[in-house]
Amino acid sequence: MKDGENEHGNAQSPSVPNVTTRTEFDFIDQLRQRATLQAHSSQTIQLLKLGIGDDAAVVHSSAVKDTVIATDLLIEGIDFRRNTAPANLLGHKALAVSLSDIAAMGARPRWSLISLGVPDDVWQSSFANDFYEGLFHLAGQYDVQLIGGDTSRTPEQIVIDSIVIGECPIDRAIERSGAQPGDQIFVTGALGGAAGGLRLIERGAHLADQNFSANETQALDHLLLRHLQPEPRIGWGMVLGQERLANSMIDISDGLSSDLNHICLESRVGALIHSSLLPIDVQVVELCGRRALDPLQLALHGGEDFELLFTVRPDAVAKLPRRVDGVGITHIGEIRDGSEGVKISEGTRVWELQPGGWKHF
Amino acid sequence: MKDGENEHGNAQSPSVPNVTTRTEFDFIDQLRQRATLQAHSSQTIQLLKLGIGDDAAVVHSSAVKDTVIATDLLIEGIDFRRNTAPANLLGHKALAVSLSDIAAMGARPRWSLISLGVPDDVWQSSFANDFYEGLFHLAGQYDVQLIGGDTSRTPEQIVIDSIVIGECPIDRAIERSGAQPGDQIFVTGALGGAAGGLRLIERGAHLADQNFSANETQALDHLLLRHLQPEPRIGWGMVLGQERLANSMIDISDGLSSDLNHICLESRVGALIHSSLLPIDVQVVELCGRRALDPLQLALHGGEDFELLFTVRPDAVAKLPRRVDGVGITHIGEIRDGSEGVKISEGTRVWELQPGGWKHF
Repeated sequence: MKDGENEHGNAQSPSVPNVTTRTEFDFIDQLRQRATLQAHSSQTIQLLKLGIGDDAAVVHSSAVKDTVIATDLLIEGIDFRRNTAPANLLGHKALAVSLSDIAAMGARPRWSLISLGVPDDVWQSSFANDFYEGLFHLAGQYDVQLIGGDTSRTPEQIVIDSIVIGECPIDRAIERSGAQPGDQIFVTGALGGAAGGLRLIERGAHLADQNFSANETQALDHLLLRHLQPEPRIGWGMVLGQERLANSMIDISDGLSSDLNHICLESRVGALIHSSLLPIDVQVVELCGRRALDPLQLALHGGEDFELLFTVRPDAVAKLPRRVDGVGITHIGEIRDGSEGVKISEGTRVWELQPGGWKHF
Repeated sequence: MKDGENEHGNAQSPSVPNVTTRTEFDFIDQLRQRATLQAHSSQTIQLLKLGIGDDAAVVHSSAVKDTVIATDLLIEGIDFRRNTAPANLLGHKALAVSLSDIAAMGARPRWSLISLGVPDDVWQSSFANDFYEGLFHLAGQYDVQLIGGDTSRTPEQIVIDSIVIGECPIDRAIERSGAQPGDQIFVTGALGGAAGGLRLIERGAHLADQNFSANETQALDHLLLRHLQPEPRIGWGMVLGQERLANSMIDISDGLSSDLNHICLESRVGALIHSSLLPIDVQVVELCGRRALDPLQLALHGGEDFELLFTVRPDAVAKLPRRVDGVGITHIGEIRDGSEGVKISEGTRVWELQPGGWKHF
């Protein structure tokens, strides 16, 4: 990522990164340029609000409504492991990650489509039933309807593509590109829990683990579920979108450092966040801290918290509700001029916040 | 498939097939029942026109328009092989199969999203560039805009999920369930070419193959491209939809025998088709016939021709255009009462047309 960052940041120059060194972000940028060129030469452009490169695509579906579409590919062995992710929680998570994208646009999720590929032995098991059980349960909570998808056999791995379609009033979708110097930066909930949970799973921990002390088990389950069963911040997304409280937003899927950089890159601004303000998950501090896992690193670079990271104009800060659906928010910094870069302060020290989160390539 | 057929056909009885014997069609039927139950208990039902179990899902997106969404999962080793499917043709095909689903609903395709998972070595190659080259080329032909998707790493196999979103006037989507006794059955183009092409590829043939005689090469390339680079019948779909000429429609992806059975099952009707009327691809007769591949079997049960199979009320038959975009149609039989089953006549013999096409499980 660090290697590709300069090339990616240099969005004005359409130089194509060398195939062998490009990151997925370079590639997505190329695709966007190509798709935009095509749109300019067609009649589609007036209908296309926002395409490649945000949490979701937005199209004008009527004179009053925009349609928002998110897709998330989950691959066994990369995004999850069959022996540590129970099928019902995987069904929950597959839907949750796309719901989170819709929330990050400030839209209301309406419909789900699931493309599911499984090998023969998985098909013969209760996997698909359990998977959809978890999915239907979460869908029911937000009145989201499963309307379609595809089913396929695979040679070995389970493959899931989760598509969620949402709606918002026309031109109300909150993009990554709307932040301006002076905006205040907020994040919902707590950070680092999902990455902490994943690290503990990788070290052999599991739900209701008898290897942990009695008073650690509840804390452990909390962290593992932050990874296995993330909760999308639908309520916050809709409040921030409908009342136009946020002017840019993203969900924390890659990690705070990467996702803040995404906002700054798209908005052509800088940022300064303060490590002392970061709402690090208390169980991360408790359980991970004493296992030589740095809570601050997990909060900054650990992915999949699926909290919302958003910016608010100074005059709108007072209008923010304190809690939505029982989830609070925390002020973590300010948007600065683009020339100042993306930085983090710790006490009197300030350093550059390199995107250190998840990347596929 | 034959084992599961009775259970699947018995849609009134919600008995759940045993996990170990169910087909994918059983499973999709279960999902549909579950999703419908959920919809009835929510406020979504009035917006959901048609969900699981057709070529695409349909939702009311405004007072005048319906949105139609199709997804198709393509898995390396199951749906294609890396060494026989050139990347640009794979990009074409990934989009084409979903465009074909939209055409089968009588809708106009507007937007494409592609979720693409590839292993590291493929990412380092020109695969993704070539894949999108083929996809953009086809998208440009139909003014379809690539607006999003997801990119992921996979351990080994290439995985593609193709999502296409289309539109049609409200309540004009053509479902599988609208056929009535007395309707005439039509099919666009020619049948068996894609299956014939696949069989020849499996025997080692490739494009511009020097192992074939000079006058066979052109015929061979035609068949291979029927498999590798199918053409969706967008023009026919839109004509049949907008002018309400067809009352049921499906695209031939599984195979004529299976797809006709899908229409009859959903419409609760029977059918009689005549083998002498089937528009078997002339190159299948030529090239496959002399290689011990039965052209009639390929036309009946070979999948992926992506022609449209549709039914027309007797009084509407005279209104059908002869050709659309240079592609003709052929009358192949009639819809009968459900009690008569799904049958095929050959000379004076009539037998049951079992669904013999593609199934994943």
